[in-house]
Amino acid sequence: MNKLKMDKLVIFCKTYGYIFQGSEIYGGLANTWDYGPLGIELKNNIKKIWWKTFIQELPNSYGIDCSILMNPDVWVASGHVDEFNDLMIDCKSCKARYRADNLIENFSKEDIEVDGLTKEEMSKYIIDNKVSCPKCGESDFTDIREFNLMFETKRGVTGDKNEIYLRPETAQGQFVNFSNVQRSLRAKIPFGIGQIGKAFRNEITPGNFIFRTIEFEQMEYQYFCKPGTDQEHYRFFKKKALDFFKNIGIKEVNLKYKDHQKLAHYAKEATDLEYLFPSGWGEVNGTHSRTDFDLKKHQEHSKKSMEYLDPVTNEKYLPYIIESTVGVDRAILVALCDAYDVEQLENDETREVLRLKPNIAPYKVAVLPLIKKIHKEKALEIYGKLSKHFMISYDETGKIGKRYRRQDVIGTPYAVTIDDNTLTADTVTVRNRDTMKQVVLKIEDLVTFITDKINE
Amino acid sequence: MNKLKMDKLVIFCKTYGYIFQGSEIYGGLANTWDYGPLGIELKNNIKKIWWKTFIQELPNSYGIDCSILMNPDVWVASGHVDEFNDLMIDCKSCKARYRADNLIENFSKEDIEVDGLTKEEMSKYIIDNKVSCPKCGESDFTDIREFNLMFETKRGVTGDKNEIYLRPETAQGQFVNFSNVQRSLRAKIPFGIGQIGKAFRNEITPGNFIFRTIEFEQMEYQYFCKPGTDQEHYRFFKKKALDFFKNIGIKEVNLKYKDHQKLAHYAKEATDLEYLFPSGWGEVNGTHSRTDFDLKKHQEHSKKSMEYLDPVTNEKYLPYIIESTVGVDRAILVALCDAYDVEQLENDETREVLRLKPNIAPYKVAVLPLIKKIHKEKALEIYGKLSKHFMISYDETGKIGKRYRRQDVIGTPYAVTIDDNTLTADTVTVRNRDTMKQVVLKIEDLVTFITDKINE
Repeated sequence: MNKLKMDKLVIFCKTYGYIFQGSEIYGGLANTWDYGPLGIELKNNIKKIWWKTFIQELPNSYGIDCSILMNPDVWVASGHVDEFNDLMIDCKSCKARYRADNLIENFSKEDIEVDGLTKEEMSKYIIDNKVSCPKCGESDFTDIREFNLMFETKRGVTGDKNEIYLRPETAQGQFVNFSNVQRSLRAKIPFGIGQIGKAFRNEITPGNFIFRTIEFEQMEYQYFCKPGTDQEHYRFFKKKALDFFKNIGIKEVNLKYKDHQKLAHYAKEATDLEYLFPSGWGEVNGTHSRTDFDLKKHQEHSKKSMEYLDPVTNEKYLPYIIESTVGVDRAILVALCDAYDVEQLENDETREVLRLKPNIAPYKVAVLPLIKKIHKEKALEIYGKLSKHFMISYDETGKIGKRYRRQDVIGTPYAVTIDDNTLTADTVTVRNRDTMKQVVLKIEDLVTFITDKINE
Repeated sequence: MNKLKMDKLVIFCKTYGYIFQGSEIYGGLANTWDYGPLGIELKNNIKKIWWKTFIQELPNSYGIDCSILMNPDVWVASGHVDEFNDLMIDCKSCKARYRADNLIENFSKEDIEVDGLTKEEMSKYIIDNKVSCPKCGESDFTDIREFNLMFETKRGVTGDKNEIYLRPETAQGQFVNFSNVQRSLRAKIPFGIGQIGKAFRNEITPGNFIFRTIEFEQMEYQYFCKPGTDQEHYRFFKKKALDFFKNIGIKEVNLKYKDHQKLAHYAKEATDLEYLFPSGWGEVNGTHSRTDFDLKKHQEHSKKSMEYLDPVTNEKYLPYIIESTVGVDRAILVALCDAYDVEQLENDETREVLRLKPNIAPYKVAVLPLIKKIHKEKALEIYGKLSKHFMISYDETGKIGKRYRRQDVIGTPYAVTIDDNTLTADTVTVRNRDTMKQVVLKIEDLVTFITDKINE
């Protein structure tokens, strides 16, 4: 496998219409990205498969879709107002600004667990080890200060208390709607609530393409269960996250669990699923056993009962929560990194090919008239038929071999060529992206053939 | 048809899991709403049909998905920074605040075209007609002031020029990415770019449930064409918007065009498609012929050429744009209002039924074991099979007639009952929501039966 370096991937994505820099014609807006025609199809496919896996096919599963703008008390209860901070430090000499943990990580080189350090421990480490500024080399820093990561905006025209936040995660929507969903759907514990949506974090040092951005999309699922049954459900969802990535075609060898050594005070178990990016292992999913921490906090702050009454046993309790989170943008990055390949051909040539699994490929089929003048009309007829079922690419320009290669590089799994036999015998040639082998099929069998390949 | 009043519809939506008040347990956040399990399925179905209609099946159509946070220069070029204002006025006597146009509309009762009035004309009208405050009755107002509707937030930690905006519409994403899409997909004029996504407006007087909210979702499509061909494409998309609403099952008698009498200075033609809500006619789609206004503005401000070079004729020109916009939330409101019915039955009873077209219904099928003890296992087996294809509801509690009615009211078009014959002969009873007629089908024929009904 030939891995793309991240800077090459950025160019690849722009060239082929996967991802563009956000607001590019105005010089961009740092760490925002716009999905192009291929990127959005890949994204939609990944989101649909997640929804099918976690909502549609899991019994007792319910989707929701909450406002990005929520009552600010939500973020007081969740702890985000007080605790969702980055620790920042400035070089007194050259005024460069750093996230304290990044400064230490870059300096130390060794694998120290910066994640677990408190503000005071970081300060002490920086002074004790004479950590120096990567820019000017001096070791003269300000104190570490806290900077809240939530974007703030104002509701209405005037008024004292009108600050609201852009949500920094979707999960709180599931928590605050727990009772509404339970009551209106007459849901019985254990059951789950999931949501796909945008979240925003005013990161000081984001980057690495779409790995960390100020605006991103999450697929979050909360499973509400009876205390004592949480461990079994935790194991189920830990495995389910891995299955999800395997189902969208990611090679298992590039995935690994990293169980948390240091747990949040309320957490019972937690794991990250990591993928081997060109830049190293990075988190793509978190599965957390969170006890009743979230519902208890909201019950305290809202004064509304979050308890569940078991209709059979008449027990009343706060459910425990297992949480499974996947970053949509990271899943896209994983899919692209994992699928990219440069194949060595026999004749010393190379072939650039994006081996996306058919279920997530943007276009399922390319329709190609062999000779434009002669085969275009029939090709458009077939395009019309197929596009009722799938996203279809159409290309009538250039030599057929070149057109195949164009589809290889954007990941289209099948190319359907319309030639003289199509006109006389209603057959087409179907070329496989990965094997480059061709088969002849009846036009009427195309939809079933492709549907089967997508569902494989 | 029995129309729901808006306040009844709000309760209906909460009761059955369609739509909840946003952040309800904290007293809400005015004019935000959270979609519940049924609401999000309805929403996803409507979005998927729009995408299929405008992107998948239209040749030369491309989707994109842009950041909500864009470079602020975008909004300078588009005119939103200077001109996207509400005109506000305060009663000096009781301090009540109004949108000037609303104040005049409420006062005048006659059908005066407030939309076309300038700030000065409104001031004059209010003074000349001694418009009085609806709250205290006095006629003593402040001057009319402008209030920008964009939500503002700050990027990064400090700095002078870090104000950015939440986009008030998605369309600018299509304009600023015109060249990127054209180049990377080698698109030829005429072609279209569409996007579905959230937008935000700090409305002073929003309301009417999800008709006008501070956060909403748009489905916007821009068709780029050669000047001179714009009229023919305008007609095409004007009709296409109506077809879209008919395709999701909306009765044509409740829809009408309202062509704009007074056009924006750059516009050639414009129409609203309106729906007859319980509160009266309201806009659900706009189709606008916008000339080269948008691309020209961005070319001026970004200093990047927005011209298209015709590869055949070598002509170079700024394309004209036809725009078609549908509000997702309004389309949902339309679907709910249009589908709600209370049917008079023969025995003096009434039946509450949501006659959603099967292609947008949240659950396509309800699986109901006739007797829980005996038929549950087989029912779950069938649930498992069907849920690979569709969103399925499952209900094992209560009398079968009551369970049918529960599905009627949430709009599930088919109910599949599992009884003794299922165990012995692999057949099920399929009940039609609208006719209440039942047919007996083989289990193996269910998927095809339902698929056909959805695609009807």
